[in-house]
Amino acid sequence: MKIYKSQDIKSMNKIFRLNLINSITGIKPANLIGTKSKDNFENLAIFSSVVHLGSNPALLAMVSRPQHDGLKDTYANIKETGYYTINHVSSDFIEKAHYTSAKLEREISEFEIMNLDAEYSENFYAPFVLQSHLKIGMKYIEGIDLPNGCILIIGEVEMIQVPEKSINELGQINLENHEAVGISGLDTYYSLKKLKQFSYAHKNEIPDFKD
Amino acid sequence: MKIYKSQDIKSMNKIFRLNLINSITGIKPANLIGTKSKDNFENLAIFSSVVHLGSNPALLAMVSRPQHDGLKDTYANIKETGYYTINHVSSDFIEKAHYTSAKLEREISEFEIMNLDAEYSENFYAPFVLQSHLKIGMKYIEGIDLPNGCILIIGEVEMIQVPEKSINELGQINLENHEAVGISGLDTYYSLKKLKQFSYAHKNEIPDFKD
Repeated sequence: MKIYKSQDIKSMNKIFRLNLINSITGIKPANLIGTKSKDNFENLAIFSSVVHLGSNPALLAMVSRPQHDGLKDTYANIKETGYYTINHVSSDFIEKAHYTSAKLEREISEFEIMNLDAEYSENFYAPFVLQSHLKIGMKYIEGIDLPNGCILIIGEVEMIQVPEKSINELGQINLENHEAVGISGLDTYYSLKKLKQFSYAHKNEIPDFKD
Repeated sequence: MKIYKSQDIKSMNKIFRLNLINSITGIKPANLIGTKSKDNFENLAIFSSVVHLGSNPALLAMVSRPQHDGLKDTYANIKETGYYTINHVSSDFIEKAHYTSAKLEREISEFEIMNLDAEYSENFYAPFVLQSHLKIGMKYIEGIDLPNGCILIIGEVEMIQVPEKSINELGQINLENHEAVGISGLDTYYSLKKLKQFSYAHKNEIPDFKD
């Protein structure tokens, strides 16, 4: 077992710390965020920080890096248009998804460079990723400044597209059925295999765990 | 493909919506949060919302459900003592981890009921989970109220314990090596298999994705 204390973490090599802290939270979801600026430049960027806030209203959040040097394309587009999409990354396009993290000029579309197709379903303003299996249309609610300069982008779910094979009669999604992947750290992708499903944890139905 | 629009989501059966919205973000990390009240009652609760905020300072966040009916044990303990632990759930104790979500009285320790062992390493105030392989000691920084009543709990990493086999010379964690698991929705657990690791996405090194 390796132990790193507060002082070790503060004095660590920068790259080592970046890798370590980015990977200690465990597996992270892999999603592509699709946006389009007011003047019609499309943008696509991978995020591993999408998180559930509540189901009624249906709210999701994601963390955007500090924008001290001017707004990045994703956040700028979300703020000026009010819409974005969240698209699950599947195993057959992880390399394309990963390279959307490269810094490209605002006028260059990651859709084009990565050879992914922008899909405009149901007249939704922001582009979905055609190759993605589970796609969510989001309406921007607000951006909350966090103590380290990051921004928590909160939005409401406006539309969901999900393959028939991935959803059951209770509304549960099977991530394995559309080969959704997870991310560890900044650059490592994992496939998912369903292990076990439990029932709701009622107090009176806790198994006897004593040996 | 099934499509749910805004009005469908608002008028959905409550359980169906709960399951659907809880699972659309993709895979979520499975972590047990360990706390101890000022009067020494231990608590353990599963969270699937731990998210990375930044590596210097090393900040992590997690989402706590609304606490309108009084503070829940985890958040109450964090606020009154300033410390908590984050412990990766591995495949060999997912059932015990899952049942920590049952509502137990404050005086009852989930460690005891689930037959998991509280570990006090390096005199850290909050209990770690002995059975967990990757364990993080956290210092509470602040709680931010979110628009739906949830609270974003932000903390700084004070200590990390990680198995030698799970970390490489660059600080990257291999989640498969200690059988860390992910969660979908409220009750389904997935195992992880490393698929692929890419290099940093430099603009000039993007592969040619055109067919």
